[in-house]
Amino acid sequence: MSLIQPRTLKGFRDLMPDQALRRADIVRVVEDVFRAHGYGPIDTPILEYAEIIKGKGGGEIDKEIFEFIDKGGREVAMRNDLTVPLARYVAQHEGKLVFPFRRFHIGLAFRGERPQRGRAREFLQCDADLIGPVGVAADAEAMIVMAAVYAALDVGKVTLRVNDRRILTGLLEAVGAPDQAAPVLRALDKRDKLGDETVRKEMSGVGLDDAAIDRVLAACTPGESDEATLAALEGLVGETDAGRAGIDSLRQVRRLFEAAGQDPATLRIDPSIARGLDYYTGIVVEAQLDDLPDIGSVGGGGRYDDLAGLYTKSHMPGVGFTVGITRLMDALDALERGGEATCTTEAMLTYPGDEHLTEAFAFSAALRRAGIASEVYPQPKKHGQQMRYADRRGIPFVFTRNEDGTFHGKRMSDGETLRCSDASDAVGWMRPT
Amino acid sequence: MSLIQPRTLKGFRDLMPDQALRRADIVRVVEDVFRAHGYGPIDTPILEYAEIIKGKGGGEIDKEIFEFIDKGGREVAMRNDLTVPLARYVAQHEGKLVFPFRRFHIGLAFRGERPQRGRAREFLQCDADLIGPVGVAADAEAMIVMAAVYAALDVGKVTLRVNDRRILTGLLEAVGAPDQAAPVLRALDKRDKLGDETVRKEMSGVGLDDAAIDRVLAACTPGESDEATLAALEGLVGETDAGRAGIDSLRQVRRLFEAAGQDPATLRIDPSIARGLDYYTGIVVEAQLDDLPDIGSVGGGGRYDDLAGLYTKSHMPGVGFTVGITRLMDALDALERGGEATCTTEAMLTYPGDEHLTEAFAFSAALRRAGIASEVYPQPKKHGQQMRYADRRGIPFVFTRNEDGTFHGKRMSDGETLRCSDASDAVGWMRPT
Repeated sequence: MSLIQPRTLKGFRDLMPDQALRRADIVRVVEDVFRAHGYGPIDTPILEYAEIIKGKGGGEIDKEIFEFIDKGGREVAMRNDLTVPLARYVAQHEGKLVFPFRRFHIGLAFRGERPQRGRAREFLQCDADLIGPVGVAADAEAMIVMAAVYAALDVGKVTLRVNDRRILTGLLEAVGAPDQAAPVLRALDKRDKLGDETVRKEMSGVGLDDAAIDRVLAACTPGESDEATLAALEGLVGETDAGRAGIDSLRQVRRLFEAAGQDPATLRIDPSIARGLDYYTGIVVEAQLDDLPDIGSVGGGGRYDDLAGLYTKSHMPGVGFTVGITRLMDALDALERGGEATCTTEAMLTYPGDEHLTEAFAFSAALRRAGIASEVYPQPKKHGQQMRYADRRGIPFVFTRNEDGTFHGKRMSDGETLRCSDASDAVGWMRPT
Repeated sequence: MSLIQPRTLKGFRDLMPDQALRRADIVRVVEDVFRAHGYGPIDTPILEYAEIIKGKGGGEIDKEIFEFIDKGGREVAMRNDLTVPLARYVAQHEGKLVFPFRRFHIGLAFRGERPQRGRAREFLQCDADLIGPVGVAADAEAMIVMAAVYAALDVGKVTLRVNDRRILTGLLEAVGAPDQAAPVLRALDKRDKLGDETVRKEMSGVGLDDAAIDRVLAACTPGESDEATLAALEGLVGETDAGRAGIDSLRQVRRLFEAAGQDPATLRIDPSIARGLDYYTGIVVEAQLDDLPDIGSVGGGGRYDDLAGLYTKSHMPGVGFTVGITRLMDALDALERGGEATCTTEAMLTYPGDEHLTEAFAFSAALRRAGIASEVYPQPKKHGQQMRYADRRGIPFVFTRNEDGTFHGKRMSDGETLRCSDASDAVGWMRPT
């Protein structure tokens, strides 16, 4: 019989044991931070009705969706994010959920057919949202949870660049172009790449005069300090209700962030942050690692007005954010902080010959009862082969039964040895107090 | 604009916050047991080439697979278990993996279009396997890890019903029908439901005489004790090499199981256990809950000879098992041991009015630093509404700022209150030492 070639689809990949272990450890840390702040998990199906997943979307996004007709004739699609499923979920279960509703969701999402190099078509998405409340307490909480997530991950200092979309709304009102938010944002989005001249031309093309453009560019430039930025914004947009609301809210968010014991330097008010055209309506945030600015955003989010308008007439405002798990794994790699551990085993018992296998099993079990992950080499191979296995896996301690019934322990890192009369000797050696 | 009806596909379901929290907690416990025994996670894609997922399968199984042509023209399928992906994985990455290879994998799998009531089309599969070694140490380890998983889950006493397929092989050899394993197993499978007479007729139909049938039925009946069962098997199949090997192996597995500190009563030798026709070649096991025998198997597995023969010429024997997470969730429900907690929050701070919000945030953060999951009610609602929220969510402690700057704590279970001058007072109250 001919063999089937073992391979994965383009854009899909296996996680090797060290990668999977690292990702699992990151996910646990993130979950623990969410839980500590009152966020609990939910789950929704990978596969949904296509009309749910595609919603009112269209064009570019739709092309990327994995969709098909199932054997029952239904048009189905694999979810391409966790936001649409969340919207459908809160609409469907509105009567059973307790609002304000805090949830996190860590799950796979799927996007296909964009021929970018290395682009993953299956990726782990990690979102937290607080649905229901409108106001500064909820906004500040989102920033605090975000900061706590990165602080727990040992990725060095993180900056949360925050803005409030109402400042832009106020700004456009102040310059007499209240309906030009979309093109102005699109232009501003290109500022870093294409420079001010290109941006000015685009804004001029949608009817802003030079004075208005000056004011927009000034307002969307961060100052030397948050105080300087806020003072400048006061002057430029403080006269409008929306601008005023945005500025006041950012001030209060800073105050609450600091009250919660977070380093105020983590939060940086940056009026150039916009994040998308349609969705966000209040605070917006992007996270970046101070030690790896080039890696790009490692998370972001903001406030939205109406999460589930496609599915229910109930008004569902909220604030939420995404944590970029995959990018954080890359960051830990780059920072060489991923940890050395490629295996969970701390101690291995060699296979001493069938006649002493029960003693090896007993010793290994005693180590586990003391909280030490332990395994017995599972077949009667030569001692050297068993030691090579321990070495390749990175198991830190190996124990071998001596003829006199004691055990010989070896620390693999430096070759130090210990003769142990029982497992508690070994525990004392491995975990000196 | 008309609304889209929020709904899930038949056979797919959302997890409500309490269900998702419980499942997450179960998964963590199981993962921790796996890790303590040297098993690490891997991950593989949900979507694979259809030829991989379908392998040499056909007929009934194929009809249940979610498969489609992707937008790049590839025939793709959603995985329907974690065994085929494991086989593909070890074949594909053979050179990079360290053998003996212990891995666990907890992930979603998909099966469609069988119109059984309540049958899930998306389900969480949880498998652990040890690939490479052949022998009693690996077999015993699988039983020990399984027993440790159920012991960690607070589901009451568990029985692992074990058998060894070589005993049946020896038996059929001894009665002169070595090639009739498949029909004999099929007949035995119906014994519980249809009774001995029907089974006898079927066996007679494939050429076994009455004496042979008597011997098969006797051998496949558990005795009063493991010793009695083994003694009976010695007499019935001990003369054959295969039967001898199976009996000896079960004896040694029992010895190692006990050496590892597991309750020997957990392991029950039951020669009626077969588990499938083709796959298993040595030890086979099924787990059932003593307090809920009717719920059926909550896990099972066994030894196989050749995991990845479809994808590689390398011989990959192994031993592995599945833990039935969904059925264990049902069991915890039935046993009313799922825990009361439907939320992760231990303490809520009321929203005391904007002027004192910073103090509430500071108090809440101080509780979190002491390891207490805590949230601030996120909007300025009436006090009664905030308390109703805490009650509905099941939050055990609520703190409200007094006019004098102290905090008033309330234990929701019994209404007991405490005046706290700071968060450490609160911690001492919530966590008496």
